[in-house]
Amino acid sequence: MIVDKLFDAVAMRGPVCVGLDTALDYLPPQFRAGFARPDEALFEFNRRIVDATAPSCACFKLQIAYYEALGLEGLRAYARTLRYIRSKGCIAIADIKRGDIAATAQMYARAHFEGEFEADYVTLSPYMGMDSIEPWLPWVQDHEKGLFVLIRTSNPGAVDIQYLEQKSGARVYTEVARRVAEIGAPHVGTCGYSSVGGVVGCTHLEEAQALRQQLSRVFFLVPGYGAQGGTAADVALYLTNGNGGIVNSSRGILLAWKKHEDAAEHFAEHAAAEAERMRDDIRAAVGALHT
Amino acid sequence: MIVDKLFDAVAMRGPVCVGLDTALDYLPPQFRAGFARPDEALFEFNRRIVDATAPSCACFKLQIAYYEALGLEGLRAYARTLRYIRSKGCIAIADIKRGDIAATAQMYARAHFEGEFEADYVTLSPYMGMDSIEPWLPWVQDHEKGLFVLIRTSNPGAVDIQYLEQKSGARVYTEVARRVAEIGAPHVGTCGYSSVGGVVGCTHLEEAQALRQQLSRVFFLVPGYGAQGGTAADVALYLTNGNGGIVNSSRGILLAWKKHEDAAEHFAEHAAAEAERMRDDIRAAVGALHT
Repeated sequence: MIVDKLFDAVAMRGPVCVGLDTALDYLPPQFRAGFARPDEALFEFNRRIVDATAPSCACFKLQIAYYEALGLEGLRAYARTLRYIRSKGCIAIADIKRGDIAATAQMYARAHFEGEFEADYVTLSPYMGMDSIEPWLPWVQDHEKGLFVLIRTSNPGAVDIQYLEQKSGARVYTEVARRVAEIGAPHVGTCGYSSVGGVVGCTHLEEAQALRQQLSRVFFLVPGYGAQGGTAADVALYLTNGNGGIVNSSRGILLAWKKHEDAAEHFAEHAAAEAERMRDDIRAAVGALHT
Repeated sequence: MIVDKLFDAVAMRGPVCVGLDTALDYLPPQFRAGFARPDEALFEFNRRIVDATAPSCACFKLQIAYYEALGLEGLRAYARTLRYIRSKGCIAIADIKRGDIAATAQMYARAHFEGEFEADYVTLSPYMGMDSIEPWLPWVQDHEKGLFVLIRTSNPGAVDIQYLEQKSGARVYTEVARRVAEIGAPHVGTCGYSSVGGVVGCTHLEEAQALRQQLSRVFFLVPGYGAQGGTAADVALYLTNGNGGIVNSSRGILLAWKKHEDAAEHFAEHAAAEAERMRDDIRAAVGALHT
Protein backbone atom coordinates (compact mmCIF):
# COMPACT_ATOMS: atom_id res chain seq x y z
CA MET A 1 0.00 0.00 0.00
CA ILE A 2 1.38 3.37 -1.02
CA VAL A 3 -0.07 4.92 2.14
CA ASP A 4 2.29 2.83 4.28
CA LYS A 5 5.24 4.20 2.36
CA LEU A 6 3.90 7.73 2.84
CA PHE A 7 3.26 7.14 6.55
CA ASP A 8 6.84 5.89 7.01
CA ALA A 9 8.18 8.90 5.11
CA VAL A 10 6.30 11.26 7.45
CA ALA A 11 7.50 9.33 10.51
CA MET A 12 11.11 9.52 9.35
CA ARG A 13 11.35 12.92 7.70
CA GLY A 14 8.31 14.90 8.88
CA PRO A 15 5.07 15.96 7.17
CA VAL A 16 6.32 18.56 4.69
CA CYS A 17 5.15 18.12 1.09
CA VAL A 18 7.28 20.20 -1.26
CA GLY A 19 5.00 21.73 -3.88
CA LEU A 20 6.72 21.95 -7.24
CA ASP A 21 4.31 24.54 -8.67
CA THR A 22 7.23 25.77 -10.68
CA ALA A 23 6.52 28.86 -12.76
CA LEU A 24 9.39 30.00 -14.98
CA ASP A 25 9.58 33.29 -13.11
CA TYR A 26 10.22 31.40 -9.85
CA LEU A 27 13.71 30.62 -11.17
CA PRO A 28 16.54 33.00 -10.24
CA PRO A 29 17.12 35.01 -13.46
CA GLN A 30 20.85 34.23 -13.56
CA PHE A 31 20.13 30.51 -13.24
CA ARG A 32 17.39 30.65 -15.88
CA ALA A 33 19.74 32.45 -18.27
CA GLY A 34 22.05 29.43 -18.34
CA PHE A 35 19.57 27.32 -20.34
CA ALA A 36 18.54 27.59 -23.96
CA ARG A 37 15.22 25.80 -23.51
CA PRO A 38 12.68 26.67 -20.78
CA ASP A 39 11.88 23.01 -20.12
CA GLU A 40 15.57 22.31 -19.47
CA ALA A 41 15.69 25.18 -16.98
CA LEU A 42 12.49 24.03 -15.27
CA PHE A 43 13.63 20.45 -14.96
CA GLU A 44 17.10 21.38 -13.71
CA PHE A 45 15.60 23.77 -11.12
CA ASN A 46 13.22 21.04 -9.92
CA ARG A 47 16.01 18.43 -9.85
CA ARG A 48 18.14 20.58 -7.56
CA ILE A 49 15.18 21.38 -5.28
CA VAL A 50 14.35 17.68 -5.08
CA ASP A 51 17.94 16.72 -4.25
CA ALA A 52 18.22 19.39 -1.59
CA THR A 53 14.83 18.94 0.12
CA ALA A 54 14.42 15.14 -0.10
CA PRO A 55 16.05 14.54 3.33
CA SER A 56 13.62 16.88 5.10
CA CYS A 57 10.30 16.24 3.35
CA ALA A 58 7.81 13.39 3.05
CA CYS A 59 6.98 13.78 -0.62
CA PHE A 60 6.67 16.09 -3.62
CA LYS A 61 3.54 17.47 -5.28
CA LEU A 62 3.53 18.76 -8.84
CA GLN A 63 0.77 21.17 -9.82
CA ILE A 64 0.35 20.20 -13.48
CA ALA A 65 -1.21 23.57 -14.47
CA TYR A 66 2.19 25.26 -14.25
CA TYR A 67 3.58 22.80 -16.78
CA GLU A 68 0.52 22.72 -19.06
CA ALA A 69 0.85 26.50 -19.33
CA LEU A 70 4.10 25.93 -21.24
CA GLY A 71 2.56 23.45 -23.66
CA LEU A 72 4.31 20.25 -24.74
CA GLU A 73 7.70 21.52 -23.57
CA GLY A 74 6.32 22.21 -20.11
CA LEU A 75 4.79 18.75 -19.96
CA ARG A 76 8.13 17.26 -20.94
CA ALA A 77 9.66 18.95 -17.87
CA TYR A 78 6.70 17.64 -15.85
CA ALA A 79 7.30 14.07 -17.01
CA ARG A 80 11.05 14.28 -16.38
CA THR A 81 10.53 15.71 -12.89
CA LEU A 82 8.09 12.93 -11.96
CA ARG A 83 10.50 10.31 -13.26
CA TYR A 84 13.41 11.86 -11.37
CA ILE A 85 11.50 11.96 -8.05
CA ARG A 86 10.38 8.36 -8.37
CA SER A 87 13.83 7.15 -9.48
CA LYS A 88 15.14 8.42 -6.13
CA GLY A 89 12.54 6.31 -4.33
CA CYS A 90 10.57 9.41 -3.29
CA ILE A 91 6.79 9.78 -3.53
CA ALA A 92 5.31 12.01 -6.24
CA ILE A 93 1.78 13.43 -6.09
CA ALA A 94 0.26 14.63 -9.35
CA ASP A 95 -1.97 17.58 -8.42
CA ILE A 96 -4.34 17.26 -11.34
CA LYS A 97 -7.79 17.53 -9.64
CA ARG A 98 -9.39 15.48 -12.40
CA GLY A 99 -12.99 14.35 -12.13
CA ASP A 100 -14.79 12.62 -14.98
CA ILE A 101 -16.88 9.55 -15.59
CA ALA A 102 -16.27 5.89 -16.37
CA ALA A 103 -14.37 5.56 -19.66
CA THR A 104 -12.82 9.01 -19.31
CA ALA A 105 -11.68 8.38 -15.73
CA GLN A 106 -10.01 5.18 -16.92
CA MET A 107 -8.16 7.15 -19.58
CA TYR A 108 -7.01 9.66 -16.95
CA ALA A 109 -5.89 6.81 -14.69
CA ARG A 110 -3.84 5.36 -17.54
CA ALA A 111 -2.41 8.81 -18.18
CA HIS A 112 -1.31 9.48 -14.60
CA PHE A 113 -0.67 6.02 -13.14
CA GLU A 114 1.15 4.51 -16.14
CA GLY A 115 3.55 5.62 -18.82
CA GLU A 116 5.30 8.97 -19.15
CA PHE A 117 3.25 10.84 -16.53
CA GLU A 118 3.28 8.07 -13.90
CA ALA A 119 2.84 9.41 -10.36
CA ASP A 120 2.25 7.66 -7.01
CA TYR A 121 -0.78 9.71 -6.01
CA VAL A 122 -3.24 11.92 -7.86
CA THR A 123 -5.68 14.54 -6.57
CA LEU A 124 -9.31 14.20 -7.71
CA SER A 125 -12.39 16.44 -7.65
CA PRO A 126 -15.65 14.80 -6.48
CA TYR A 127 -18.36 16.99 -8.07
CA MET A 128 -19.40 14.37 -10.64
CA GLY A 129 -19.91 11.75 -7.92
CA MET A 130 -18.42 8.51 -6.73
CA ASP A 131 -18.50 6.89 -10.18
CA SER A 132 -15.82 9.43 -11.13
CA ILE A 133 -13.61 8.16 -8.26
CA GLU A 134 -14.27 4.41 -8.44
CA PRO A 135 -12.54 3.79 -11.81
CA TRP A 136 -9.27 4.74 -10.07
CA LEU A 137 -9.62 2.12 -7.33
CA PRO A 138 -8.19 -0.86 -9.25
CA TRP A 139 -4.90 1.05 -9.39
CA VAL A 140 -5.09 1.64 -5.63
CA GLN A 141 -5.82 -2.03 -5.09
CA ASP A 142 -3.31 -3.61 -7.45
CA HIS A 143 -0.64 -1.09 -8.38
CA GLU A 144 0.48 0.70 -5.21
CA LYS A 145 -1.27 3.93 -6.14
CA GLY A 146 -3.16 6.45 -4.00
CA LEU A 147 -5.78 9.19 -4.27
CA PHE A 148 -6.40 12.48 -2.52
CA VAL A 149 -10.02 13.52 -3.10
CA LEU A 150 -10.96 17.17 -2.55
CA ILE A 151 -13.05 17.40 0.61
CA ARG A 152 -12.70 20.96 1.86
CA THR A 153 -10.29 23.37 0.27
CA SER A 154 -8.51 26.40 1.73
CA ASN A 155 -9.60 29.11 -0.73
CA PRO A 156 -12.26 31.69 0.17
CA GLY A 157 -14.60 30.32 -2.53
CA ALA A 158 -14.72 26.97 -0.72
CA VAL A 159 -17.86 28.26 1.00
CA ASP A 160 -19.77 28.52 -2.32
CA ILE A 161 -20.43 24.80 -2.82
CA GLN A 162 -18.55 22.85 -0.14
CA TYR A 163 -20.28 24.73 2.70
CA LEU A 164 -23.85 24.56 1.44
CA GLU A 165 -25.98 23.37 4.32
CA GLN A 166 -27.98 20.24 3.69
CA LYS A 167 -31.42 19.46 5.05
CA SER A 168 -29.75 17.31 7.70
CA GLY A 169 -27.79 20.34 8.89
CA ALA A 170 -24.50 18.90 7.63
CA ARG A 171 -22.40 20.66 5.00
CA VAL A 172 -21.81 19.30 1.51
CA TYR A 173 -18.17 18.66 2.33
CA THR A 174 -19.09 16.41 5.27
CA GLU A 175 -21.05 14.21 2.88
CA VAL A 176 -18.04 14.12 0.57
CA ALA A 177 -15.88 13.26 3.60
CA ARG A 178 -18.20 10.41 4.54
CA ARG A 179 -18.11 9.05 0.98
CA VAL A 180 -14.33 9.28 0.78
CA ALA A 181 -13.97 7.38 4.07
CA GLU A 182 -16.44 4.79 2.81
CA ILE A 183 -14.75 4.02 -0.51
CA GLY A 184 -11.35 4.12 1.17
CA ALA A 185 -12.25 1.59 3.86
CA PRO A 186 -11.16 -1.50 1.85
CA HIS A 187 -7.80 0.17 1.14
CA VAL A 188 -6.44 0.72 4.66
CA GLY A 189 -2.78 -0.16 5.06
CA THR A 190 -0.88 -1.53 8.06
CA CYS A 191 -0.34 2.05 9.25
CA GLY A 192 -4.09 2.38 9.87
CA TYR A 193 -4.76 4.91 7.12
CA SER A 194 -6.26 4.37 3.68
CA SER A 195 -4.58 4.92 0.33
CA VAL A 196 -7.73 6.92 -0.50
CA GLY A 197 -6.94 10.20 1.23
CA GLY A 198 -8.55 13.62 1.28
CA VAL A 199 -7.58 17.24 0.66
CA VAL A 200 -8.50 19.33 3.71
CA GLY A 201 -7.38 22.96 3.91
CA CYS A 202 -6.10 24.21 7.28
CA THR A 203 -8.79 26.85 7.66
CA HIS A 204 -12.06 26.84 9.63
CA LEU A 205 -10.17 25.54 12.63
CA GLU A 206 -13.25 25.05 14.79
CA GLU A 207 -14.01 22.01 12.63
CA ALA A 208 -10.51 20.61 12.53
CA GLN A 209 -10.78 18.18 15.40
CA ALA A 210 -14.24 16.98 14.42
CA LEU A 211 -12.98 16.29 10.93
CA ARG A 212 -9.83 14.54 12.17
CA GLN A 213 -11.97 12.30 14.39
CA GLN A 214 -14.68 11.64 11.81
CA LEU A 215 -12.02 10.67 9.29
CA SER A 216 -9.67 8.70 11.51
CA ARG A 217 -8.49 6.49 8.63
CA VAL A 218 -8.30 9.18 5.94
CA PHE A 219 -4.80 10.48 5.27
CA PHE A 220 -4.92 14.25 4.76
CA LEU A 221 -3.20 16.42 2.20
CA VAL A 222 -3.27 19.84 3.85
CA PRO A 223 -2.78 22.97 1.73
CA GLY A 224 -2.87 26.49 3.10
CA TYR A 225 0.32 26.67 5.19
CA GLY A 226 2.38 29.85 4.87
CA ALA A 227 1.49 31.85 1.77
CA GLN A 228 -2.21 31.01 2.28
CA GLY A 229 -2.17 32.02 5.95
CA GLY A 230 -2.15 28.73 7.89
CA THR A 231 0.23 28.44 10.87
CA ALA A 232 1.96 25.37 12.30
CA ALA A 233 -0.49 25.42 15.21
CA ASP A 234 -3.40 25.29 12.73
CA VAL A 235 -1.81 22.46 10.78
CA ALA A 236 -1.08 20.40 13.89
CA LEU A 237 -4.84 20.03 14.51
CA TYR A 238 -5.15 18.03 11.28
CA LEU A 239 -2.44 15.56 12.23
CA THR A 240 -2.53 12.71 14.74
CA ASN A 241 0.67 12.64 16.75
CA GLY A 242 2.31 14.40 13.84
CA ASN A 243 1.33 11.82 11.22
CA GLY A 244 -1.78 10.97 9.19
CA GLY A 245 -1.26 13.96 6.96
CA ILE A 246 1.15 15.93 4.83
CA VAL A 247 1.36 19.71 4.68
CA ASN A 248 2.07 21.35 1.37
CA SER A 249 4.15 24.43 0.80
CA SER A 250 5.08 25.61 -2.68
CA ARG A 251 6.10 29.24 -2.99
CA GLY A 252 7.42 29.39 0.60
CA ILE A 253 10.02 26.77 -0.33
CA LEU A 254 10.63 27.45 -4.04
CA LEU A 255 11.04 31.19 -3.51
CA ALA A 256 13.11 31.06 -0.30
CA TRP A 257 16.04 32.26 -2.43
CA LYS A 258 14.44 35.69 -2.83
CA LYS A 259 15.50 36.62 0.69
CA HIS A 260 19.17 36.05 -0.11
CA GLU A 261 21.92 37.63 -2.20
CA ASP A 262 23.46 34.40 -3.51
CA ALA A 263 20.29 33.11 -5.10
CA ALA A 264 21.57 31.90 -8.46
CA GLU A 265 24.15 29.65 -6.81
CA HIS A 266 22.36 28.49 -3.70
CA PHE A 267 18.60 28.54 -4.31
CA ALA A 268 18.32 24.83 -3.53
CA GLU A 269 20.05 25.18 -0.15
CA HIS A 270 17.71 28.03 0.76
CA ALA A 271 14.74 25.84 -0.22
CA ALA A 272 16.08 23.02 1.95
CA ALA A 273 16.58 25.37 4.90
CA GLU A 274 12.98 26.57 4.55
CA ALA A 275 11.66 22.98 4.34
CA GLU A 276 13.60 22.13 7.51
CA ARG A 277 12.34 25.25 9.27
CA MET A 278 8.77 24.37 8.32
CA ARG A 279 9.17 20.75 9.44
CA ASP A 280 10.57 21.85 12.81
CA ASP A 281 7.85 24.50 13.13
CA ILE A 282 5.13 21.86 12.64
CA ARG A 283 6.85 19.31 14.89
CA ALA A 284 7.07 21.91 17.68
CA ALA A 285 3.38 22.75 17.27
CA VAL A 286 2.48 19.05 17.38
CA GLY A 287 4.60 18.72 20.53
CA ALA A 288 2.89 21.71 22.14
CA LEU A 289 -0.50 20.15 21.38
CA HIS A 290 0.36 17.05 23.37
CA THR A 291 1.85 18.69 26.44
CA MET B 1 -18.40 37.14 -28.12
CA ILE B 2 -17.69 33.49 -28.84
CA VAL B 3 -21.26 32.57 -27.88
CA ASP B 4 -22.59 34.54 -30.86
CA LYS B 5 -20.40 32.51 -33.18
CA LEU B 6 -21.63 29.30 -31.55
CA PHE B 7 -25.26 30.45 -31.74
CA ASP B 8 -24.86 31.18 -35.46
CA ALA B 9 -23.23 27.80 -36.02
CA VAL B 10 -26.19 26.06 -34.38
CA ALA B 11 -28.65 28.15 -36.38
CA MET B 12 -26.90 27.26 -39.63
CA ARG B 13 -25.76 23.70 -39.12
CA GLY B 14 -27.75 22.36 -36.17
CA PRO B 15 -26.83 21.61 -32.55
CA VAL B 16 -24.58 18.56 -32.95
CA CYS B 17 -21.25 18.72 -31.14
CA VAL B 18 -18.88 16.08 -32.49
CA GLY B 19 -16.98 14.57 -29.56
CA LEU B 20 -13.44 13.69 -30.52
CA ASP B 21 -12.88 11.34 -27.57
CA THR B 22 -10.59 9.45 -29.86
CA ALA B 23 -9.16 6.26 -28.36
CA LEU B 24 -6.64 4.46 -30.55
CA ASP B 25 -8.91 1.41 -30.75
CA TYR B 26 -11.68 3.58 -32.24
CA LEU B 27 -9.65 3.68 -35.46
CA PRO B 28 -10.38 1.04 -38.11
CA PRO B 29 -7.44 -1.41 -37.78
CA GLN B 30 -6.56 -1.23 -41.49
CA PHE B 31 -6.44 2.57 -41.30
CA ARG B 32 -4.40 2.50 -38.11
CA ALA B 33 -1.90 0.11 -39.69
CA GLY B 34 -0.97 2.72 -42.28
CA PHE B 35 0.83 4.91 -39.72
CA ALA B 36 4.13 4.33 -37.96
CA ARG B 37 3.34 6.65 -35.03
CA PRO B 38 0.11 6.50 -33.00
CA ASP B 39 -0.15 10.30 -32.81
CA GLU B 40 0.01 10.53 -36.62
CA ALA B 41 -2.81 7.99 -36.89
CA LEU B 42 -4.88 9.82 -34.25
CA PHE B 43 -4.46 13.20 -35.86
CA GLU B 44 -5.19 11.92 -39.37
CA PHE B 45 -8.33 10.11 -38.14
CA ASN B 46 -9.51 13.30 -36.41
CA ARG B 47 -8.68 15.43 -39.45
CA ARG B 48 -10.83 13.31 -41.71
CA ILE B 49 -13.70 13.23 -39.20
CA VAL B 50 -13.52 17.03 -38.89
CA ASP B 51 -13.52 17.53 -42.65
CA ALA B 52 -16.46 15.19 -43.14
CA THR B 53 -18.66 16.35 -40.25
CA ALA B 54 -17.97 20.11 -40.27
CA PRO B 55 -20.90 20.88 -42.62
CA SER B 56 -23.40 19.18 -40.32
CA CYS B 57 -22.22 20.08 -36.83
CA ALA B 58 -21.95 23.22 -34.70
CA CYS B 59 -18.58 22.49 -33.10
CA PHE B 60 -16.09 19.90 -31.91
CA LYS B 61 -15.26 18.80 -28.37
CA LEU B 62 -11.99 17.10 -27.48
CA GLN B 63 -11.91 15.02 -24.31
CA ILE B 64 -8.28 15.58 -23.28
CA ALA B 65 -8.10 12.41 -21.15
CA TYR B 66 -7.95 10.26 -24.30
CA TYR B 67 -4.87 12.15 -25.44
CA GLU B 68 -3.19 12.41 -22.01
CA ALA B 69 -3.45 8.62 -21.81
CA LEU B 70 -0.92 8.45 -24.66
CA GLY B 71 1.52 10.83 -22.98
CA LEU B 72 3.36 13.56 -24.85
CA GLU B 73 2.67 11.96 -28.24
CA GLY B 74 -1.04 11.92 -27.49
CA LEU B 75 -0.96 15.56 -26.47
CA ARG B 76 0.84 16.41 -29.70
CA ALA B 77 -2.12 14.89 -31.59
CA TYR B 78 -4.44 16.87 -29.29
CA ALA B 79 -2.67 20.15 -30.07
CA ARG B 80 -2.62 19.45 -33.82
CA THR B 81 -6.32 18.56 -33.83
CA LEU B 82 -7.26 21.77 -32.00
CA ARG B 83 -5.17 23.81 -34.42
CA TYR B 84 -6.71 22.10 -37.42
CA ILE B 85 -10.29 22.68 -36.23
CA ARG B 86 -9.66 26.35 -35.51
CA SER B 87 -7.76 26.89 -38.79
CA LYS B 88 -10.95 25.86 -40.59
CA GLY B 89 -12.88 28.54 -38.67
CA CYS B 90 -14.70 25.93 -36.59
CA ILE B 91 -15.21 26.09 -32.81
CA ALA B 92 -13.18 23.79 -30.57
CA ILE B 93 -14.18 22.94 -26.99
CA ALA B 94 -11.46 21.57 -24.70
CA ASP B 95 -13.23 19.14 -22.37
CA ILE B 96 -10.76 19.44 -19.50
CA LYS B 97 -13.09 19.89 -16.47
CA ARG B 98 -10.41 21.81 -14.61
CA GLY B 99 -11.15 23.51 -11.32
CA ASP B 100 -8.46 25.11 -9.19
CA ILE B 101 -7.79 28.37 -7.41
CA ALA B 102 -6.35 31.76 -8.30
CA ALA B 103 -2.77 31.40 -9.55
CA THR B 104 -3.35 27.81 -10.68
CA ALA B 105 -6.52 28.71 -12.58
CA GLN B 106 -4.60 31.44 -14.36
CA MET B 107 -1.98 28.91 -15.39
CA TYR B 108 -4.69 26.61 -16.72
CA ALA B 109 -6.24 29.52 -18.61
CA ARG B 110 -2.90 30.28 -20.22
CA ALA B 111 -2.52 26.60 -21.06
CA HIS B 112 -5.89 26.22 -22.76
CA PHE B 113 -6.70 29.70 -24.10
CA GLU B 114 -3.20 30.54 -25.46
CA GLY B 115 -0.33 28.76 -27.13
CA GLU B 116 -0.20 25.17 -28.33
CA PHE B 117 -3.40 23.97 -26.64
CA GLU B 118 -5.53 27.00 -27.52
CA ALA B 119 -9.25 26.20 -27.66
CA ASP B 120 -12.34 28.41 -27.97
CA TYR B 121 -14.17 26.97 -24.98
CA VAL B 122 -13.16 24.93 -21.94
CA THR B 123 -15.24 22.90 -19.51
CA LEU B 124 -14.75 23.62 -15.78
CA SER B 125 -15.72 21.91 -12.53
CA PRO B 126 -17.18 24.15 -9.79
CA TYR B 127 -16.47 22.20 -6.57
CA MET B 128 -13.78 24.62 -5.34
CA GLY B 129 -16.13 27.59 -5.73
CA MET B 130 -16.51 30.70 -7.82
CA ASP B 131 -12.92 31.88 -7.24
CA SER B 132 -11.90 28.87 -9.35
CA ILE B 133 -14.09 30.13 -12.23
CA GLU B 134 -13.50 33.89 -12.00
CA PRO B 135 -9.82 33.83 -13.11
CA TRP B 136 -11.04 32.61 -16.52
CA LEU B 137 -13.38 35.58 -17.04
CA PRO B 138 -10.80 38.05 -18.42
CA TRP B 139 -10.34 35.68 -21.36
CA VAL B 140 -14.12 35.59 -21.85
CA GLN B 141 -14.24 39.37 -21.68
CA ASP B 142 -11.27 40.26 -23.86
CA HIS B 143 -10.24 37.27 -25.95
CA GLU B 144 -13.39 35.74 -27.46
CA LYS B 145 -13.29 32.71 -25.18
CA GLY B 146 -16.07 30.78 -23.47
CA LEU B 147 -16.71 28.45 -20.53
CA PHE B 148 -18.99 25.53 -19.87
CA VAL B 149 -19.25 24.97 -16.11
CA LEU B 150 -20.50 21.59 -14.85
CA ILE B 151 -23.99 22.08 -13.42
CA ARG B 152 -25.68 18.68 -13.58
CA THR B 153 -24.05 15.75 -15.32
CA SER B 154 -25.60 12.71 -16.97
CA ASN B 155 -23.82 9.91 -15.08
CA PRO B 156 -25.56 7.88 -12.34
CA GLY B 157 -23.15 9.26 -9.70
CA ALA B 158 -24.44 12.78 -10.37
CA VAL B 159 -26.87 12.19 -7.50
CA ASP B 160 -24.03 11.81 -4.94
CA ILE B 161 -23.12 15.49 -4.65
CA GLN B 162 -25.08 17.45 -7.25
CA TYR B 163 -28.43 16.23 -5.93
CA LEU B 164 -27.83 16.75 -2.22
CA GLU B 165 -30.85 18.59 -0.86
CA GLN B 166 -30.14 21.87 0.81
CA LYS B 167 -31.98 23.32 3.79
CA SER B 168 -33.91 25.51 1.37
CA GLY B 169 -35.17 22.40 -0.41
CA ALA B 170 -33.12 23.15 -3.53
CA ARG B 171 -30.45 20.80 -4.83
CA VAL B 172 -26.75 21.62 -4.86
CA TYR B 173 -26.78 21.80 -8.65
CA THR B 174 -29.47 24.51 -8.62
CA GLU B 175 -27.18 26.67 -6.49
CA VAL B 176 -24.36 26.03 -8.98
CA ALA B 177 -26.78 26.92 -11.78
CA ARG B 178 -27.70 30.18 -10.07
CA ARG B 179 -24.04 31.07 -9.60
CA VAL B 180 -23.19 30.26 -13.22
CA ALA B 181 -26.03 32.46 -14.46
CA GLU B 182 -24.85 35.22 -12.12
CA ILE B 183 -21.22 35.31 -13.18
CA GLY B 184 -22.25 34.91 -16.82
CA ALA B 185 -24.65 37.87 -16.80
CA PRO B 186 -22.04 40.48 -17.83
CA HIS B 187 -20.98 38.27 -20.75
CA VAL B 188 -24.23 37.96 -22.71
CA GLY B 189 -23.83 38.32 -26.47
CA THR B 190 -26.18 39.75 -29.07
CA CYS B 191 -27.78 36.30 -29.41
CA GLY B 192 -29.12 36.63 -25.86
CA TYR B 193 -26.94 33.90 -24.34
CA SER B 194 -23.80 34.23 -22.24
CA SER B 195 -20.31 33.02 -23.13
CA VAL B 196 -20.37 31.43 -19.66
CA GLY B 197 -22.39 28.31 -20.38
CA GLY B 198 -23.25 25.20 -18.41
CA VAL B 199 -23.01 21.43 -18.77
CA VAL B 200 -26.45 19.88 -18.25
CA GLY B 201 -27.00 16.18 -18.94
CA CYS B 202 -30.21 15.18 -20.71
CA THR B 203 -31.47 13.04 -17.85
CA HIS B 204 -34.00 13.77 -15.06
CA LEU B 205 -36.37 15.13 -17.66
CA GLU B 206 -38.98 16.32 -15.16
CA GLU B 207 -36.56 19.17 -14.37
CA ALA B 208 -35.60 20.02 -17.93
CA GLN B 209 -38.07 22.80 -18.52
CA ALA B 210 -37.57 24.37 -15.10
CA LEU B 211 -33.83 24.42 -15.73
CA ARG B 212 -34.19 25.82 -19.25
CA GLN B 213 -36.42 28.61 -17.88
CA GLN B 214 -34.31 29.36 -14.80
CA LEU B 215 -31.22 29.59 -17.03
CA SER B 216 -32.66 31.45 -19.98
CA ARG B 217 -29.32 33.07 -20.81
CA VAL B 218 -27.06 30.08 -20.12
CA PHE B 219 -25.97 28.20 -23.24
CA PHE B 220 -26.06 24.45 -22.56
CA LEU B 221 -23.58 21.76 -23.45
CA VAL B 222 -25.72 18.62 -23.27
CA PRO B 223 -24.05 15.23 -22.96
CA GLY B 224 -25.92 11.94 -22.72
CA TYR B 225 -27.40 11.56 -26.22
CA GLY B 226 -27.20 8.09 -27.79
CA ALA B 227 -24.64 5.89 -26.04
CA GLN B 228 -25.68 7.29 -22.67
CA GLY B 229 -29.40 6.77 -23.30
CA GLY B 230 -30.76 10.21 -24.13
CA THR B 231 -33.19 10.52 -27.05
CA ALA B 232 -33.80 13.45 -29.39
CA ALA B 233 -37.08 14.13 -27.58
CA ASP B 234 -35.18 14.39 -24.27
CA VAL B 235 -32.58 16.68 -25.78
CA ALA B 236 -35.15 18.97 -27.36
CA LEU B 237 -36.38 19.97 -23.88
CA TYR B 238 -33.02 21.58 -23.17
CA LEU B 239 -33.06 23.73 -26.30
CA THR B 240 -35.10 26.85 -27.06
CA ASN B 241 -36.46 26.68 -30.58
CA GLY B 242 -33.59 24.34 -31.39
CA ASN B 243 -30.86 26.72 -30.22
CA GLY B 244 -29.31 27.76 -26.90
CA GLY B 245 -27.50 24.47 -26.59
CA ILE B 246 -25.27 21.91 -28.27
CA VAL B 247 -25.65 18.17 -27.99
CA ASN B 248 -22.55 16.04 -27.81
CA SER B 249 -22.08 12.62 -29.33
CA SER B 250 -18.73 10.90 -29.40
CA ARG B 251 -18.78 7.14 -29.89
CA GLY B 252 -22.03 7.26 -31.87
CA ILE B 253 -20.26 9.33 -34.52
CA LEU B 254 -16.65 8.11 -34.29
CA LEU B 255 -17.65 4.44 -34.33
CA ALA B 256 -20.37 4.68 -37.01
CA TRP B 257 -17.95 2.79 -39.31
CA LYS B 258 -18.38 -0.38 -37.25
CA LYS B 259 -21.75 -1.00 -38.86
CA HIS B 260 -20.22 -1.09 -42.34
CA GLU B 261 -17.94 -3.31 -44.41
CA ASP B 262 -15.88 -0.56 -46.04
CA ALA B 263 -14.72 1.01 -42.77
CA ALA B 264 -11.03 1.58 -43.49
CA GLU B 265 -11.84 3.61 -46.62
CA HIS B 266 -15.00 5.41 -45.64
CA PHE B 267 -15.10 5.84 -41.84
CA ALA B 268 -15.36 9.62 -42.17
CA GLU B 269 -18.37 9.44 -44.50
CA HIS B 270 -20.11 7.11 -42.06
CA ALA B 271 -19.37 9.57 -39.24
CA ALA B 272 -20.82 12.40 -41.34
CA ALA B 273 -23.94 10.37 -42.12
CA GLU B 274 -24.44 9.70 -38.40
CA ALA B 275 -23.94 13.39 -37.52
CA GLU B 276 -26.55 14.31 -40.13
CA ARG B 277 -28.95 11.66 -38.89
CA MET B 278 -28.53 12.93 -35.34
CA ARG B 279 -29.02 16.55 -36.40
CA ASP B 280 -32.20 15.68 -38.29
CA ASP B 281 -33.41 13.54 -35.39
CA ILE B 282 -33.04 16.46 -32.98
CA ARG B 283 -34.53 18.99 -35.41
CA ALA B 284 -37.56 16.75 -35.87
CA ALA B 285 -37.97 16.45 -32.08
CA VAL B 286 -37.69 20.21 -31.69
CA GLY B 287 -40.32 20.62 -34.41
CA ALA B 288 -42.65 18.13 -32.70
CA LEU B 289 -42.31 20.08 -29.45
CA HIS B 290 -43.61 23.23 -31.09
CA THR B 291 -46.58 21.80 -32.96
